[in-house]
Amino acid sequence: MDNRPIGVFDSGVGGLTVLREIRKLLPDENLIYFGDTARVPYGTKSKRTITAFAGQIVEFLLKKNVKLIVAACNTVSSNSLSYLKQHYPIPIIGVIEPGVELALKLTKNRHIGVIGTQSTINSKRYKILLLKSDKKLKISEKACPLFVPIAEEGLAGSAIAEMAIKNYLTKIKAKKIDTLILGCTHYPLLEKPLEKFFSKKVHLVNSGYAVSIIVKQLLSNKGLLNKRSRAGKISLFVSDLNETVLNVVKHTLELKQIRPKIISLD
Amino acid sequence: MDNRPIGVFDSGVGGLTVLREIRKLLPDENLIYFGDTARVPYGTKSKRTITAFAGQIVEFLLKKNVKLIVAACNTVSSNSLSYLKQHYPIPIIGVIEPGVELALKLTKNRHIGVIGTQSTINSKRYKILLLKSDKKLKISEKACPLFVPIAEEGLAGSAIAEMAIKNYLTKIKAKKIDTLILGCTHYPLLEKPLEKFFSKKVHLVNSGYAVSIIVKQLLSNKGLLNKRSRAGKISLFVSDLNETVLNVVKHTLELKQIRPKIISLD
Repeated sequence: MDNRPIGVFDSGVGGLTVLREIRKLLPDENLIYFGDTARVPYGTKSKRTITAFAGQIVEFLLKKNVKLIVAACNTVSSNSLSYLKQHYPIPIIGVIEPGVELALKLTKNRHIGVIGTQSTINSKRYKILLLKSDKKLKISEKACPLFVPIAEEGLAGSAIAEMAIKNYLTKIKAKKIDTLILGCTHYPLLEKPLEKFFSKKVHLVNSGYAVSIIVKQLLSNKGLLNKRSRAGKISLFVSDLNETVLNVVKHTLELKQIRPKIISLD
Repeated sequence: MDNRPIGVFDSGVGGLTVLREIRKLLPDENLIYFGDTARVPYGTKSKRTITAFAGQIVEFLLKKNVKLIVAACNTVSSNSLSYLKQHYPIPIIGVIEPGVELALKLTKNRHIGVIGTQSTINSKRYKILLLKSDKKLKISEKACPLFVPIAEEGLAGSAIAEMAIKNYLTKIKAKKIDTLILGCTHYPLLEKPLEKFFSKKVHLVNSGYAVSIIVKQLLSNKGLLNKRSRAGKISLFVSDLNETVLNVVKHTLELKQIRPKIISLD
């Protein structure tokens, strides 16, 4: 038993969907979140800068005495994870491999869709990992740049969300994928309209859910689970506090309003 | 007569709408554009960082021997313009004052709307300037975070644009404004659906147009106009080249495709 917190970080607030999944599966754990909202987005920055920023965040979380860190950010997971794992003496889990593994378990027709930001799709990171495990997989990718601002604006339930989904995903739907990787931590906020669009016939892979399973396994194997009977504490930190942050905190966590604290890492 | 180019810069590619207006009014002028697409957006950065970045860009443009600089970026115009004017020996024009002046000329019922990014609306910069010239003005403001990605995705003509406009502006329309300041350089890309929404009954203030008039006056007064008979040359520079940049270049300039050159200022 180990009551130290689990650290979760993202370039912004999308990673809160990952925090939410960990919370669901491991309600007793204390959780600390850091969102680098002053320097978001990372997708347009160089690998070197992304790794430097991620390193600063890991050091902040280590000072908070975390027992495990989740890099709940696709950009950090694809650019900096191996560096972070080598340089810090703590288990660090990204969001890409867990999503890929879950998708491979779920697909029956071996045709997987991948959606994400332009930078994630351009990186081909998901495609490369999927093909590594099965060269014959069919993969259909699509960048969906409107999904993040729609989620951040709390418009997931609106007709705008439905139209944006139709705009981006009509072709992928026609190709008969049976599994869709939500390759951006914001996208689980659009889970309901996405399920509606695909008439629940497509498995939606929420990497946060996939990550939470791995976190539980890892903590359990190492005897690091926190088995208290009351709910764990959630602490939120951001580098800039604005309305978007408060919006997403409200829509994602559905807990009584938690006000994030502001911390500068510069 | 002076054939040195005019420099125009922005944190990203929205400022191309300002370049376009200058081009329309002053077709003989050579134009150099710099978009800091690797470090966009500026809206979430500190005043100090914004001013440092803007200074780097001004120095880059000075090396290109420009005769006048337009800061075609709301964030730079509101945070760093006075610093830049003091520190560099060249006329530098922002986008906020010209838009405000034009709106004050156009409004008859003295009720002006202002739309922009969250950071521009939060700054209250337009409101303060408007009220400074007329304390009795009625002002209705609204942040419209979806407009930038919709414009960047080339979706200005789509039903998504219409729905987003309805979502953000129905209340402002009901308040009977007669003039609307487009307080973000991306927004002129949505001019057509905005005109349709307001049934052409509201003056849309395009700050790029307002800026182009001031640029012409200033160059004319100082005898710096370039009066060649053939069209001036346009050169585009960005700090990162991606599909969004190419999309906006295509949609904004409607010239035969110009491929921007990549320059790092770091």
